[in-house]
Amino acid sequence: MLQQHGFAGRLYPVNPKYQQLQGLTVYPAIGDVPGPVDLALVAVPAPAVVGVLEGCAAAGVRCALILSSGFAESGPAGQQLQAQVADVCARTGLRVNGPNAEGVYYPGAGVCATFSPALDPQHGFPAPAPAGPVAVVSQSGGLGFAILNQGRELGLGFGAVVSTGNEVDLGWLDYVDWLLDDPGIRVILGFLEGFRRADRLRAVAAKAARLKKPIVVAKIGRSEAGRRAAASHTGSLVGSDAIYSAAFAELGILRVDDVDEMLDVAAYFCVGRLPAGRRLAVLTTSGGAGAWLADACASRGFSLPPPSPADQAEVASFIPAYGSTGNPVDITAQAVFGGGFERALGRLARAPEFDAVVGVGSMVREDRFLQSLPDLRAAVDGASSALAFYSYTRPSRTITDTLASLGIPCYTSPLRAARALAAAAGYAEFLARCAALEPPIDQPRRLWPSPGGRLGEQAARAYLEPLGIPSPPGCLATSADEAVAHWAALGQRPVALKAHLPSLVHKTEVGGVRLGLQTAEHVRAAFEAITANVERAGVGPLAGVLVQQMAPPGGLELLLAARRDPILGPFVVVGLGGEHVEALGDVALRLAPLTPAGVEAMLDDLRGVALLRRPRSGRAWDLAALNAAIVRMGELAAGLPPEVLDVEINPLLVLPAGQGLLLLDAAVDVAC
Amino acid sequence: MLQQHGFAGRLYPVNPKYQQLQGLTVYPAIGDVPGPVDLALVAVPAPAVVGVLEGCAAAGVRCALILSSGFAESGPAGQQLQAQVADVCARTGLRVNGPNAEGVYYPGAGVCATFSPALDPQHGFPAPAPAGPVAVVSQSGGLGFAILNQGRELGLGFGAVVSTGNEVDLGWLDYVDWLLDDPGIRVILGFLEGFRRADRLRAVAAKAARLKKPIVVAKIGRSEAGRRAAASHTGSLVGSDAIYSAAFAELGILRVDDVDEMLDVAAYFCVGRLPAGRRLAVLTTSGGAGAWLADACASRGFSLPPPSPADQAEVASFIPAYGSTGNPVDITAQAVFGGGFERALGRLARAPEFDAVVGVGSMVREDRFLQSLPDLRAAVDGASSALAFYSYTRPSRTITDTLASLGIPCYTSPLRAARALAAAAGYAEFLARCAALEPPIDQPRRLWPSPGGRLGEQAARAYLEPLGIPSPPGCLATSADEAVAHWAALGQRPVALKAHLPSLVHKTEVGGVRLGLQTAEHVRAAFEAITANVERAGVGPLAGVLVQQMAPPGGLELLLAARRDPILGPFVVVGLGGEHVEALGDVALRLAPLTPAGVEAMLDDLRGVALLRRPRSGRAWDLAALNAAIVRMGELAAGLPPEVLDVEINPLLVLPAGQGLLLLDAAVDVAC
Repeated sequence: MLQQHGFAGRLYPVNPKYQQLQGLTVYPAIGDVPGPVDLALVAVPAPAVVGVLEGCAAAGVRCALILSSGFAESGPAGQQLQAQVADVCARTGLRVNGPNAEGVYYPGAGVCATFSPALDPQHGFPAPAPAGPVAVVSQSGGLGFAILNQGRELGLGFGAVVSTGNEVDLGWLDYVDWLLDDPGIRVILGFLEGFRRADRLRAVAAKAARLKKPIVVAKIGRSEAGRRAAASHTGSLVGSDAIYSAAFAELGILRVDDVDEMLDVAAYFCVGRLPAGRRLAVLTTSGGAGAWLADACASRGFSLPPPSPADQAEVASFIPAYGSTGNPVDITAQAVFGGGFERALGRLARAPEFDAVVGVGSMVREDRFLQSLPDLRAAVDGASSALAFYSYTRPSRTITDTLASLGIPCYTSPLRAARALAAAAGYAEFLARCAALEPPIDQPRRLWPSPGGRLGEQAARAYLEPLGIPSPPGCLATSADEAVAHWAALGQRPVALKAHLPSLVHKTEVGGVRLGLQTAEHVRAAFEAITANVERAGVGPLAGVLVQQMAPPGGLELLLAARRDPILGPFVVVGLGGEHVEALGDVALRLAPLTPAGVEAMLDDLRGVALLRRPRSGRAWDLAALNAAIVRMGELAAGLPPEVLDVEINPLLVLPAGQGLLLLDAAVDVAC
Repeated sequence: MLQQHGFAGRLYPVNPKYQQLQGLTVYPAIGDVPGPVDLALVAVPAPAVVGVLEGCAAAGVRCALILSSGFAESGPAGQQLQAQVADVCARTGLRVNGPNAEGVYYPGAGVCATFSPALDPQHGFPAPAPAGPVAVVSQSGGLGFAILNQGRELGLGFGAVVSTGNEVDLGWLDYVDWLLDDPGIRVILGFLEGFRRADRLRAVAAKAARLKKPIVVAKIGRSEAGRRAAASHTGSLVGSDAIYSAAFAELGILRVDDVDEMLDVAAYFCVGRLPAGRRLAVLTTSGGAGAWLADACASRGFSLPPPSPADQAEVASFIPAYGSTGNPVDITAQAVFGGGFERALGRLARAPEFDAVVGVGSMVREDRFLQSLPDLRAAVDGASSALAFYSYTRPSRTITDTLASLGIPCYTSPLRAARALAAAAGYAEFLARCAALEPPIDQPRRLWPSPGGRLGEQAARAYLEPLGIPSPPGCLATSADEAVAHWAALGQRPVALKAHLPSLVHKTEVGGVRLGLQTAEHVRAAFEAITANVERAGVGPLAGVLVQQMAPPGGLELLLAARRDPILGPFVVVGLGGEHVEALGDVALRLAPLTPAGVEAMLDDLRGVALLRRPRSGRAWDLAALNAAIVRMGELAAGLPPEVLDVEINPLLVLPAGQGLLLLDAAVDVAC
């Protein structure tokens, strides 16, 4: 493979049994190789690998790529072998790819150090191939090279494919970091089963943002079955999925769900221009196809304003009456013959009303296309917009290659075009956000004390006091008389009674809560009922009953929590619906700590954000207090002792502007 | 085109200028044609069409296909011409396709009556082609034939493509109805901009369900831009989109959003078996690809239970230690060489634990595939499951064609495989639901009286009394003293005060509502405040203030409405969140009338259905009362006078089981 792909350096086969191999001298051991060795390709049975690596290190080899399987992925004995490999790395400074890897393809240096059939000239790969702008870093070797195989069909050029294997030494982030520095690489595609370490994630993402090189990632583990498979396949920890989506979004890493999506987005970044916004013009020769594309784009956040009156008049001058000068601009198949498509494209691509123009047509007739190519060039030359095409017939490769050379990616379905364009617009928005970002919080983190165990409402309230979120006034009562006295002391206003229970027992579900009590009799009866209910439920001794003033009616209930992912670390959760947050599933997540701007973006992720931003009553909520509380919760999350799994305030009541927040219930969970 | 596609009947060119055309005798007028004519293809300028049609009718021609443009799609003059065409149809009984159509392809009879380049042998179409099982009925001619063009690339065979044009006579549903009777057609693909009439939609859908022939539809108009384009393109009415999704789901019409999705689903129905449920086994040779597919399927409602212990032991006997016998079953690339894939497939495809098995691998090496083909045949022969493959490399066409002949559709991405399989499972569920369905409600509809104009809360409450949903007791007060007296008469319990305003003014937003008033002073102050607010807002005279007992705390707030779509007719809306329903956007729709089973399915469509079905308090809601109320609302919707646009109860309060419902507010809107 190395020879066929044009590797120009020296190759030294090492094997004790042979003396010649494909015209090369074979050496019995790595120590016998005459020259300096940059990379050793190790393909010996697993038990022999450690010895070979020791030999490599002793011979001054700098890197080794272990193709052999039989390590952590194959049970306890293999795990032990892998630990020995790690030990060699740590001891000798040898850098290792794999084990259990499928190798590396790096055509810029003629390196095809893999046994993947996807690159085998015998199976049709045209080697040597020029290096292209797309890099793939994959934790699955099979898929990594399959991405190359499918991408080539779409006309993508690849500059690197790395199978990372078990990542005993070099990990996914190391390769991405290195490839970002390669001036020929413009976009990095990743397939991830799970990070082994993510401590450098922020730094690598920040570097990619500085270089404006998008990282496009498929990460499995969205489902329980996917997580199980990833864990069993790689032996790595796979955390909950939602925090990955949130972290990727925050760091500008584009998460995709399918290989088509990944390749379409890559094609956009290789070929197209980033749109400066989401104002889109659709120019079509088929009414139906144009409307379909408009639907697909509009559902991904694009607006389709009308062209200027002057542009509409211009277009109207050369299209038939049954066309449309609105948006979509439907010039009809008839106007194509007179060069109408290129003429309209030239106008729209220069119009300040639009950030992007998508041309819709049939890109199949090469003769016609070549005839109108000079007009197309002229239309594209002065464009201020991003451009893309959607061909509703299977397009000619000659046409799509020519379009690519003009900076126009061409897609074969409305979804594919819209999805790629939306990814490009989202990336442009991310870059703009980065540039405008507040400096990251980097003050020394306040470390919080250990809670000393799981905490129920009362203790959690005390633990969270430094957050500065008040609770309605209340007092613990140990008898019905005391409860009534507290009620009187609270001004005889409506109160809630809540069982004070150990740790995390759900008070409501055992009948330990009574709300809206307005008379002494009601308070007394509620106290009796609660003590009876708790006794019947058998959930442990009742330390007392909290008599608490009712919160004012009409506040908005949220959940606010600090949690910890085993890989990505601490994060903050905000959910709409208070007690109903689980049923509604409307939550937003962000890595901790958080900036005020990050909090606003987080709130915008909530489906029901309108409840917060545009209250029906017309009176604004105290969003300033909410923002401050979430930022403080982020600080708390970042400083939590490692045994704390979850700090949850639920409900957190948001009051009208100027009135702040109220903590109505809270709990702290720790690892057992 | 007709000749090249092997049309075996007689062709009579009609044109006054020529005498011979491509070896055929040309006749000066339709009346001069010697034999009976089944179909006239009309391609003359629009103004000449009506005369030609008159001639056709007089000559006994049965049908005409009008390719000419220049009718309703092109402005007032064209609309008039189209009205004349309609008149000819009505007067003479001539049946017409089009005008402004791209023609019809029906290879079973050798009919290629279209000018579409997609079927032109000059541009590579291999004519004549055998008739396949896929039919396309499209309101966009360009897209209809483009679907054929793209589908052929995926190996689909087409039995009909119909461009319906302006549908002056025959409409989309007519063609679908007719094609359902064609024994060679197994699946119908539709591209819809908007129905002109939908009165036969239920009947055609029911016929398709009886015949078990799926209808797969892309309907544009999901976005405002798409609706605008569809309206301007076809001149037809395009209603709101959500009711189309709901109606299609209810009637078993599969709605798709993209052409890839449409073709993938069609391929499944042409080739694959319907899964009896959603228990899925994934069998893979690449851990990463298998996990990715598992994710894609799990997110579409499939479960991935483990194989039986016996099957796991069997698989374990021939795979390496780093494989997995769980689900996904990862036999690894190594076990492929010993025939492990076919062996495992045979076990899993027979296992009673699974309804479907997806095989994941690289379907590119024809030599290897053909070698193992006998084993694959054996594995497939005894299968009780539905089968599909996902090839993570671009598959060989020979392999996919062979797989298709074995009943195995093969897809090229996790999303494409999962999406098609989910559509098949959903269709199987629909067919099962159909079989178990209660007989459709067909009793004479009760016609409701006209409301006589828009109705605010008080009047709407009276209008809706026959629904039998009680309201909290209350009385209208015209002075503060009267309000206090009413409060006293209601037992001095907490009350709400609500301005009684004309028609649809939003009471809350003008400060016309006060809740939870507990004392005479509070009631008096609230009355004064409301009258002052209403006066300040200038929203018309205040007829009084409703003094109403507060609803008991803790109920669940819903919205329940009856609305009317201009094309699909009356439907019912249920939304979660009461006043917040708009911000939450959690609504379910169904065509009216509704059966109790339909109501349950409707509630299951709500994102927050868990709030209804599994209340946090542990006490069940009165879902029986809710179901009955929604069924009654469906009867009301079906019997509403045509001027009523919207009947809305919001909030509708659901109380704990046995306690029924409470109507808290309502309004009726009519067309002006």
